[in-house]
Amino acid sequence: MRTIEWDEHLNCVRMIDQRALPGRLSYIKCTTSGEIIKAIQNMSIRGAPAIGIAGAYAMALAARKIKTHQISTLKSQVLKEGAIIQATRPTAINLRWGVGRMIHIVEEDNETVDSLPKILLEEANRMAEEDIDTNRRMAEHGAVLIQDGDTIIHHCNTGSLATVEWGTALGCIRMAHEQGKKVHVLVDETRPRLQGSRLTAWELEQYGIPYEIIVDGAAGYFLEKGKAQKVMFGADRVAANGDVANKIGSYMLAIAANDNHIPVYSVAPTTSFDLSIKDGNEIPIEERDPDEVLGISYHSQQVAPTNAKALNPAFDITPGRLISSFVTEKGVVNPPYNKTLSLIMGGNFRRK
Amino acid sequence: MRTIEWDEHLNCVRMIDQRALPGRLSYIKCTTSGEIIKAIQNMSIRGAPAIGIAGAYAMALAARKIKTHQISTLKSQVLKEGAIIQATRPTAINLRWGVGRMIHIVEEDNETVDSLPKILLEEANRMAEEDIDTNRRMAEHGAVLIQDGDTIIHHCNTGSLATVEWGTALGCIRMAHEQGKKVHVLVDETRPRLQGSRLTAWELEQYGIPYEIIVDGAAGYFLEKGKAQKVMFGADRVAANGDVANKIGSYMLAIAANDNHIPVYSVAPTTSFDLSIKDGNEIPIEERDPDEVLGISYHSQQVAPTNAKALNPAFDITPGRLISSFVTEKGVVNPPYNKTLSLIMGGNFRRK
Repeated sequence: MRTIEWDEHLNCVRMIDQRALPGRLSYIKCTTSGEIIKAIQNMSIRGAPAIGIAGAYAMALAARKIKTHQISTLKSQVLKEGAIIQATRPTAINLRWGVGRMIHIVEEDNETVDSLPKILLEEANRMAEEDIDTNRRMAEHGAVLIQDGDTIIHHCNTGSLATVEWGTALGCIRMAHEQGKKVHVLVDETRPRLQGSRLTAWELEQYGIPYEIIVDGAAGYFLEKGKAQKVMFGADRVAANGDVANKIGSYMLAIAANDNHIPVYSVAPTTSFDLSIKDGNEIPIEERDPDEVLGISYHSQQVAPTNAKALNPAFDITPGRLISSFVTEKGVVNPPYNKTLSLIMGGNFRRK
Repeated sequence: MRTIEWDEHLNCVRMIDQRALPGRLSYIKCTTSGEIIKAIQNMSIRGAPAIGIAGAYAMALAARKIKTHQISTLKSQVLKEGAIIQATRPTAINLRWGVGRMIHIVEEDNETVDSLPKILLEEANRMAEEDIDTNRRMAEHGAVLIQDGDTIIHHCNTGSLATVEWGTALGCIRMAHEQGKKVHVLVDETRPRLQGSRLTAWELEQYGIPYEIIVDGAAGYFLEKGKAQKVMFGADRVAANGDVANKIGSYMLAIAANDNHIPVYSVAPTTSFDLSIKDGNEIPIEERDPDEVLGISYHSQQVAPTNAKALNPAFDITPGRLISSFVTEKGVVNPPYNKTLSLIMGGNFRRK
């Protein structure tokens, strides 16, 4: 099961429609960058690593569709589209990274109107393969932290569906399970869009990992009762000091874990790290449609009074002081993050 | 608008059906204790003070329905019913208190099969009136803590609907508003049963107090951004050391507030205090139907996968160390709670 891939036969980008899950496993086929942008906006595809790859494919589709004999025209139009794609969702840095890698190629001088679309598609395919490889390595590093018998509280969805395949935090849990460790997951339902009860529960069913869904506000109860040994979630963007932007609710979960001396692991590829910014205050937080809060996503009925108003920040910032370790494809990173993050990122990290 | 009252004309207990709100304001009419028990169980009536009064009315109805010429038979049957009513919901101490006051009367020696039902109904009516008076006094004490211009994060519903009339925490907010202070409320939606987005938002609409609904996991975000100056919620039971059982999610909200140096006020009548127990570990936590988590209350559709499992503790324990002050009808109580709570309860507190 791949969340997003290039379909050789149909010449389109094929992605799982995550809005239809868990009720129905169906696919969206995109032949234009506009269709991918729409899928990112309405969260048919979501998860920081997955939208990074989707952004790259959007660039490849844009290049294929533009009809011109002038390489300069092609390049300028693709670059223009790149800016639009990057602005689709502001918080996760992966979208900027995915598009940025394509921009880097466009800006090179050695392509033609015939070769550029092909090269961009090849690059997007390569990035998708790299994502799977990255996730597997991350999962191996993260699985080491999980003990036989652990119950792990997990927020949002960080599984295969949040990436091309395999996942970040949920990938570590799955790896521990496949290594024969007994693991149990308490699944935060993750309001407002219920990625936990819809997507994470659906994945865990398939992996045969035992779990129960809990409301987000109940995590503290289970932590306080000693019912969980680890907290794990992903990251949409990590600042130089270890502050983490992640799905709304992550911060409260991390404080509750710290209040009970339970370790908190943020699992993310190095492409989610943005050392160009000092701390979490500089990370833009997307505000989504209040209707997601007033009712239940994917159900037409409104729960709140007719005139009710809502606020809907989609992410929050968990201070680095609350994160026990980051798990990346390059290994586990411990505090002090101001030093250790730049060491693990090394010199090989470049972003447009 | 009264949540629960005796209807003189119809000879029944009339209560707002809170499951129908905010869509429809409708009433349930009960003539038997069994009907009240059902209404408490399915949360047509909820809120610690409200179910305390409902329990008292259930006792009055039980006494009216039992047909016997023997006062001893009447008494033993009413007492038996009392035990059933008290067990309906275990966490809030108010239900035990409300029924307990009736048991006290039943156990006195001077009643007959004719007078006892009348006396019990009079007592229930008196308790309902006392509740309103208690709430008004509590609201006056609590309103003092609210500054002009404050934004308050509020959990669950603690308004008129949670009591006979006026409310506890929401009563304080309403009082501050009526005193002319500019107040703004961030309403925790309060999963799984959405008492915030359904009931609190509905009440605030009527009082003309500005508010927005947020998902429970977003409270930390707004606290961290400096968007709220107070946190207020009720209490289902307070232990001798100040540990508070309250609606699931209260604990995480209180930690998040403390992490940002924002005061947390628990507002509850002294009938919610149970000094017979040392700390929160001794408070029984009700576990409700997992279906409340798997789907959305009051909507038939399930959100989670078909076979998904869930855990549904209805309350959690907020340690007394996280509570800045308790607001009671007798005044504001500050730490150290091990000393101050017994002082405010005084000698006039008796419970069956």
